[in-house]
Amino acid sequence: MLELYHGSPAANSLKALLPLKEKGVQYVSHYMNLLEFEQHEPWFVKINPNGQVPALVHDGRTITESTVINEYVDETFAEVPLRPTDPYGRAQMRIWTKFVDEYFCPALSFLGWHAMIWSAVKHLTPEEFEARVARIPLKEQRDKWRESAAQAWTEEQLEDWRRRVRSSIERMEQGLRGPWMLGEQFTLADVSLFAMLIRMPEYYADMVNDRDSPRVIEWYGRMMSRPAVKETLAIRPPADAERSRRSVDR
Amino acid sequence: MLELYHGSPAANSLKALLPLKEKGVQYVSHYMNLLEFEQHEPWFVKINPNGQVPALVHDGRTITESTVINEYVDETFAEVPLRPTDPYGRAQMRIWTKFVDEYFCPALSFLGWHAMIWSAVKHLTPEEFEARVARIPLKEQRDKWRESAAQAWTEEQLEDWRRRVRSSIERMEQGLRGPWMLGEQFTLADVSLFAMLIRMPEYYADMVNDRDSPRVIEWYGRMMSRPAVKETLAIRPPADAERSRRSVDR
Repeated sequence: MLELYHGSPAANSLKALLPLKEKGVQYVSHYMNLLEFEQHEPWFVKINPNGQVPALVHDGRTITESTVINEYVDETFAEVPLRPTDPYGRAQMRIWTKFVDEYFCPALSFLGWHAMIWSAVKHLTPEEFEARVARIPLKEQRDKWRESAAQAWTEEQLEDWRRRVRSSIERMEQGLRGPWMLGEQFTLADVSLFAMLIRMPEYYADMVNDRDSPRVIEWYGRMMSRPAVKETLAIRPPADAERSRRSVDR
Repeated sequence: MLELYHGSPAANSLKALLPLKEKGVQYVSHYMNLLEFEQHEPWFVKINPNGQVPALVHDGRTITESTVINEYVDETFAEVPLRPTDPYGRAQMRIWTKFVDEYFCPALSFLGWHAMIWSAVKHLTPEEFEARVARIPLKEQRDKWRESAAQAWTEEQLEDWRRRVRSSIERMEQGLRGPWMLGEQFTLADVSLFAMLIRMPEYYADMVNDRDSPRVIEWYGRMMSRPAVKETLAIRPPADAERSRRSVDR
């Protein structure tokens, strides 16, 4: 059995969801409510000790980290390959997926948290908030929740993350080798980058637009036309009734 | 033809050198003098636009990033495999190599730069130093040179990096699955971690020692006994005469 624990189809959850749809692999979806800290509940920390999604469970064995999950899925369900067959092409692909993980994603993630978390947690009392944060396994994640809720980041930090995001878009604009990032083949490089780009032309129109990054905008349009992308973006949380039934089952 | 541009056998250069020795693959070594900023000279920036080593050039095509290089080398020279054959084992290996790249290496690297760079560049005038730094392609690298030369990092930053290094050693101590990180097979997970651990039991004896991390110390001893490790650690810079001949040839 294949199960994916994930949040809404954005960022790293989108990254792990999309290849499953591209390949037509059947899986059990566990849609987690990240803003209600469900990923830090004891039952889930047993599955992923870091308390993070996405996490893939295949025949009882857990695989974490969206980039690692995607190579695993491509090796395990090889029928629709999402990696080049030659080692050089694969290296080029990994340069992109690594770049997303180490540079693009952290910068974009801090900006997103800064914009979003304070309002998502404002219904909690300080004590309730602290009780939830205290349960988060990783110190770096606890810091990120506390700092973003308190709007603690300086304008200098925010501007540095914006610079990194702009520089990531420039690198994509210059690096596109064809209809897809590496040329003719749609690969995990497209998947990783799209998981970041999703909705950026709307929310970050000053960074991603026709004038500054026309080739990225065209690529984004091609991505949005893919049937698997449409299916993935249509994934919705289970109804509340379904949620409570599931938590009783546990 | 296979060529590797690298620095002394430590950190990421060690990471890329060791698999070539383990596999007995012949290559042309280009030993770069990183403290003389050779990696930022225009001739090398043509090879790797980021101005960083290691960089592998195989039949004229460049592959960068030590972790990506190592998977490339393992796929291309498959005779002595350094990755598990099953997808799950490979995923476990990649969790480690990714952890090194995103968490362990950055923390250890900042500590190393803080300890070393100010004295390595003190023979330069401020103008000479600035002229060399201005040539570095990546902003993040320029910042790192300037800040470490000026000893600009706070005790709070240094202590946070020390915490991360200690936590990395703990994770290794708990994660060791046999004689090697993943169990019976020596893999790129061992290579990545060893590239960080090298000389830590001497220079960071408060963090890596018999009492706190006995299994890591035993693993380190096994690593040091490997013939390929001995050969790699014995790599020395070419003689000065040879160096100047090479720069004339260029």
